Amino acid sequence: MATVNLPLSRAEALALDAGDVLAPLRHEFLLPEGVVYLDGNSLGPLTRRAAERVAEVVSAEWGRGLIRSWNLHGWIDLPRRVGDAIAPLIGAAPGEVVVADSTSVNLFKLLSGALALRPGRRVILSEEENFPSDLYMAQGLAALLGGEVRLRLVPRWELPAALDHQVAVVLLTHVDFRTGEMHDMAAVSEAAHRAGALALWDLAHSAGAVPVDLAGSGADFAVGCGYKYLNGGPGAPSFLWVPRRLQSQARSPLWGWLGHAEPFAFDTAYRPAAGIEGWQCGTPGILGLVSLECGVAVLAAAGMASLRRKSLALSELLLGLAERDCRGFGLALASPRDGDRRGSQVSFRHREAYAVCQALIARGVIGDFRAPDLVRFGLCPAFLTFADIWDAVGHLREVLATGAWNRQEFRVREVVT
Amino acid sequence: MATVNLPLSRAEALALDAGDVLAPLRHEFLLPEGVVYLDGNSLGPLTRRAAERVAEVVSAEWGRGLIRSWNLHGWIDLPRRVGDAIAPLIGAAPGEVVVADSTSVNLFKLLSGALALRPGRRVILSEEENFPSDLYMAQGLAALLGGEVRLRLVPRWELPAALDHQVAVVLLTHVDFRTGEMHDMAAVSEAAHRAGALALWDLAHSAGAVPVDLAGSGADFAVGCGYKYLNGGPGAPSFLWVPRRLQSQARSPLWGWLGHAEPFAFDTAYRPAAGIEGWQCGTPGILGLVSLECGVAVLAAAGMASLRRKSLALSELLLGLAERDCRGFGLALASPRDGDRRGSQVSFRHREAYAVCQALIARGVIGDFRAPDLVRFGLCPAFLTFADIWDAVGHLREVLATGAWNRQEFRVREVVT
Repeated sequence: MATVNLPLSRAEALALDAGDVLAPLRHEFLLPEGVVYLDGNSLGPLTRRAAERVAEVVSAEWGRGLIRSWNLHGWIDLPRRVGDAIAPLIGAAPGEVVVADSTSVNLFKLLSGALALRPGRRVILSEEENFPSDLYMAQGLAALLGGEVRLRLVPRWELPAALDHQVAVVLLTHVDFRTGEMHDMAAVSEAAHRAGALALWDLAHSAGAVPVDLAGSGADFAVGCGYKYLNGGPGAPSFLWVPRRLQSQARSPLWGWLGHAEPFAFDTAYRPAAGIEGWQCGTPGILGLVSLECGVAVLAAAGMASLRRKSLALSELLLGLAERDCRGFGLALASPRDGDRRGSQVSFRHREAYAVCQALIARGVIGDFRAPDLVRFGLCPAFLTFADIWDAVGHLREVLATGAWNRQEFRVREVVT
Repeated sequence: MATVNLPLSRAEALALDAGDVLAPLRHEFLLPEGVVYLDGNSLGPLTRRAAERVAEVVSAEWGRGLIRSWNLHGWIDLPRRVGDAIAPLIGAAPGEVVVADSTSVNLFKLLSGALALRPGRRVILSEEENFPSDLYMAQGLAALLGGEVRLRLVPRWELPAALDHQVAVVLLTHVDFRTGEMHDMAAVSEAAHRAGALALWDLAHSAGAVPVDLAGSGADFAVGCGYKYLNGGPGAPSFLWVPRRLQSQARSPLWGWLGHAEPFAFDTAYRPAAGIEGWQCGTPGILGLVSLECGVAVLAAAGMASLRRKSLALSELLLGLAERDCRGFGLALASPRDGDRRGSQVSFRHREAYAVCQALIARGVIGDFRAPDLVRFGLCPAFLTFADIWDAVGHLREVLATGAWNRQEFRVREVVT
């Protein structure tokens, strides 16, 4: 695991940046002045190339190319092309990933597809702390299937015992959105297989954040988010992964025209496309796809190994400084201290987490609050600097030490994503 | 019905434009020079304000506002706000329309919601000529429900007889995508109700194209497309309509976090939002929503009544000129001759429809081909001029009279949306 000697001054933090091979990547992003952005895990920032590409797609491809751009500018290939670009970040092969719809909708497709591969088994197993929307989609599918299927929720430590012969599929988020705690994908997938179940992974907080080896981990299905670490922009479409070995067996329940073997034949009967294309449904949002392609390209150029190395170094710095400078202010680490068990984020509990977040945001340090008491910092190595972390912890210490959070304006809650 | 005296020269067509109260609307669109765009029913053209707004949203809201823009710039309200903007175009009330997902996914939601309101009834009734993706989604839902439900497809004239006590919901596209033939929404909805069934309408070729009165027609559910006549840009999200009288009864089967009563509480159990918000699922694509809002605004300013008046006048001109100038070239009208029974498009059959379309496109007259033998012209009154129609028919006549379509380059088929 990467470690870092705690700098004793901002100059020493800057020296770390000077030695950082990934430092030039920051110029790929258009970040506002005076902001330390620790929320790339909620909404990745704008990339320079996305700003350029979206403008070009709007004016030249949509504006002048009009309908012809589906062929002329390859719009029709984007879902698969961007999927192929994401593949190496998650240990998938070309032709196994497609970009389509939202994470929730893709999860519905995969859950349904997985259930159909385990007829007679009636349980979707997940953990209580899983991302709520994933649980909602499973509940909705179970309700739709009229009691044939149910969602079994257990605490994480009871997952092994809950894996019985009724379980069709284990549905888990690889990196916990609250604490950043990371599952051992290979171990859980193997346990699922031993019990005769399939393993479906939500990579919302993994793709672009930590190296993922879907194929090597024995995972069966995966879904992920386009607008967090992959920097696809607000509401960018999601991706899903179905390994080639399952593509001829599993199928999506959402039979939209773009998943048809011949979408332009306009047949009356549905025939799914053979490959990953069969998991598409309706017409994809081109502007979101284009932004996502740009966001992924920035990460792909760096490679997940070096991104992970820097992510761990940033995290260690943040933890080390917080441990040294923020003691005694009611802050408790919510993330694993061991970097190997942690994604690319660090979360703390604080009784006034909401107000603390707001006070930090007012100082330009943008992290986020997660109910009921979490302050969450996303550590995106592609654009954050060691000086950013130095500054962020400095502000955190001040906000806590001076009680700067304790103002009415910081305590009134608004909707926060 | 609006009629128009056939102009005898291009100058006379220009005179019609000079007297057109909607003529200034064309300046709201950024159309390329030298193009007559008769495919706004496949992909509406770029509006001036969408070009500006997307650039602003990318650089200022995403780029500088970052995650804060969900509140600061009202992204979270966009699905409902754009829905409310669409509502008056389709005879819906505020709070009854939301923008989310694709048309296919929304259709799945509504079909499932409708079926649940008619327990014991097992049939989705539609017509063979309905838009294939709508039929596919119904087939997929039926397959998912394991034989409990089936799709019954009949020719249009057999719909009344097929409406028996087994039918839960009648699923129809209001304006046929091939011929432009328009259903009598009120009559069909009433027949469905008499049989105890619900009426679900796909407005893909109606919204923004013809005046629709959902409430007055007794429709129960509706879905529509954002990127055709509403000019929302490639793959812009879709809208769905659930009237207030059904909002407490029907619910979506796709229980995503944005449809939760408290999306940011992150509860483990799903509780749907009471209103139309409960039909949302995952995070919406903001760039598509913003473009759609701009496209809708252009139409809303004109109003559907005056748009329809001009649409009929354009259609009558096209039909009249084609009847006069294109006889004897193997062209047969596929659309109803009576404007009252026709949407905002005119389609012809021709043995070499594909090549004819390609030859027209090469001359800058962009219509589209629909298998097996249709040449389809969308007549969007917001940006088309009478001179455009004059020019288009002139090219059509030349292409047919000279056999200009009969070249290898026009006959080789590419993917066309």
